[in-house]
Amino acid sequence: MVEYGDASPEVRQVYDDIMATRKTDSVNNFWKALARHPATLRRTWDDIKQVMAPGTLDALTKELIYLAVSATNQCPYCMASHSASARKKGMTEEMLGELLAVVGMANETNALAAGYRVEIDQQFRNGT
Amino acid sequence: MVEYGDASPEVRQVYDDIMATRKTDSVNNFWKALARHPATLRRTWDDIKQVMAPGTLDALTKELIYLAVSATNQCPYCMASHSASARKKGMTEEMLGELLAVVGMANETNALAAGYRVEIDQQFRNGT
Amino acid sequence: MVEYGDASPEVRQVYDDIMATRKTDSVNNFWKALARHPATLRRTWDDIKQVMAPGTLDALTKELIYLAVSATNQCPYCMASHSASARKKGMTEEMLGELLAVVGMANETNALAAGYRVEIDQQFRNGT
Amino acid sequence: MVEYGDASPEVRQVYDDIMATRKTDSVNNFWKALARHPATLRRTWDDIKQVMAPGTLDALTKELIYLAVSATNQCPYCMASHSASARKKGMTEEMLGELLAVVGMANETNALAAGYRVEIDQQFRNGT
Amino acid sequence: MVEYGDASPEVRQVYDDIMATRKTDSVNNFWKALARHPATLRRTWDDIKQVMAPGTLDALTKELIYLAVSATNQCPYCMASHSASARKKGMTEEMLGELLAVVGMANETNALAAGYRVEIDQQFRNGT
Amino acid sequence: MVEYGDASPEVRQVYDDIMATRKTDSVNNFWKALARHPATLRRTWDDIKQVMAPGTLDALTKELIYLAVSATNQCPYCMASHSASARKKGMTEEMLGELLAVVGMANETNALAAGYRVEIDQQFRNGT
Repeated sequence: MVEYGDASPEVRQVYDDIMATRKTDSVNNFWKALARHPATLRRTWDDIKQVMAPGTLDALTKELIYLAVSATNQCPYCMASHSASARKKGMTEEMLGELLAVVGMANETNALAAGYRVEIDQQFRNGT
Repeated sequence: MVEYGDASPEVRQVYDDIMATRKTDSVNNFWKALARHPATLRRTWDDIKQVMAPGTLDALTKELIYLAVSATNQCPYCMASHSASARKKGMTEEMLGELLAVVGMANETNALAAGYRVEIDQQFRNGT
Repeated sequence: MVEYGDASPEVRQVYDDIMATRKTDSVNNFWKALARHPATLRRTWDDIKQVMAPGTLDALTKELIYLAVSATNQCPYCMASHSASARKKGMTEEMLGELLAVVGMANETNALAAGYRVEIDQQFRNGT
Repeated sequence: MVEYGDASPEVRQVYDDIMATRKTDSVNNFWKALARHPATLRRTWDDIKQVMAPGTLDALTKELIYLAVSATNQCPYCMASHSASARKKGMTEEMLGELLAVVGMANETNALAAGYRVEIDQQFRNGT
Repeated sequence: MVEYGDASPEVRQVYDDIMATRKTDSVNNFWKALARHPATLRRTWDDIKQVMAPGTLDALTKELIYLAVSATNQCPYCMASHSASARKKGMTEEMLGELLAVVGMANETNALAAGYRVEIDQQFRNGT
Repeated sequence: MVEYGDASPEVRQVYDDIMATRKTDSVNNFWKALARHPATLRRTWDDIKQVMAPGTLDALTKELIYLAVSATNQCPYCMASHSASARKKGMTEEMLGELLAVVGMANETNALAAGYRVEIDQQFRNGT
């Protein structure tokens, strides 16, 4: 992991932007790991900043979606860091409970649809 | 698939409840496939009805979470049927775009976290 | 796909063994696709023959396990071909129903365990 | 995690049923985590009790299927807790070995089928 | 899908860049689908162009890696479009065969490692 | 885990071959875990030796492909042990960075392709 003190100017610039955007004075291990490949650090941070910014979906809803993917993928780091972000943005214990209930059901019914090889209904065939 | 005309009374009862709850006059192929094992049909429908009902999270947010899991799992049936439900509940094209952008990023960063074996930060160690 | 008539002697030898072992006079598309890389065809067939042969677990139980993985991975080809093998070995409609019910539940609870970041109980720490 | 002493009456009722059903005097961490959202605890326990009960498939076969899904999904908690349950129900070391051999092969051939984009054979097209 | 004739100027600009970079006169369905959310189209194309460009790893090796992920994730579209790109960049039938053999083995041994809950060896504990 | 001193002759034979092939004097935990089921140990080692040997793809490229799958599957053991092998075979920090950048992008675009239900282009329909 690349600590601030050891970072190149281009990495520090990203770290500074992360801390300024998130109003914190430290950078998570995820970014310190990506800093081993500065192009990936730069690109990933720029993308995350764009994608997670509030739009038609608010910032909390986006965090909930992020958590849904991370629980499905069994990513312990992502659950740990993003459940903290989600709480900062207003996720309550009850919201987490409802979120995970839906995530659990979706994983269950995804497997059932594959297991029974359910054919797509005529009226759903024209795209998402 | 079990059609209404061929269904046992216990299966019909579930079909009737699905149509009444969803205010439609037909039942999706998913349920017609589950009807091959009536206990699974009954249990899954009761669970979905409970879990997807609006609570602290509204019904549309729950559909977005459901879609996030289904895109991650590469479940074509689930994307097809639930993007239709999500649209009925108000999902716009822009919302779908933002949803999938987050889903894509989450899948990317989940893989990066695993690939770099990022250690969980001290401050995130005490549970979700 | 490599058809029998166009196959090299080494590929034909595997095809012959598949047909003799399975008591059929044709070879599934899966093997015809693998035949594009004869070393993979040979190795995969030898492995499958060894692994799926009845042992402490009978041949049907092994097919059920195979189906559990394939539904979880959303593999349409694998569900299609192995549900046929399972039926040949005695899988009834009720067994399929119970199998998929367990597969669905396992996928649900796997996601819940990840989502809540459940810590492994002291008594379960000493290996599988 | 919600300990028995701190649990609400509705959570205790589930805990009591878990301990009575499993003939133990403690509750696994999984349930203590779900107890943070009592509706999920209640529903998941009722479902697991129904789905894992012996039917056409016996209780041990169901545990093996559960383990097959959990190894595929890389769920460490689920492997830990359910391999213990499976052993209680009679899983031997040899059974575990054969189970995991099948799980490994299925994951391998699932990837090969996707990689070669194998087309479903005509005779397997009519449903699971 | 957004066809060139119906595209906004910002979408056309990306389409033009895709066709110029790839030296073709048409755009794949993937990009026509992303064009429904122009910010995602722009960002994803810029990222792909940066990430897939030859670096320390050549362009073909990067396509092989891309295919390895897509076969693992059971993504039919991604296998279809990227096996075509890989062939253009020099992937032979033998290379595809060796690639998929490794992908298959990795999926098998990943499941075995999870199934046996293999502990990380002391000498591998210090990061990737 | 089965240590050398406690191993049966057939297990020792595999351990000896692993150490000779890899020019080391110890065996990784993965093999010590598989040794609990000697047939799986034997088969998996023979397969790995065949599949990972340099062919049209060199040994390093094969390790990169292996890592791509393991990061996608969130397999911590596999990332740990195979990133060590890859480094031994010449993987530099920059190569790892480029590898994971591609792996991340592939996971992102796989999810986007599923989420938008992108139809396979006419020209890609004839197989991998």
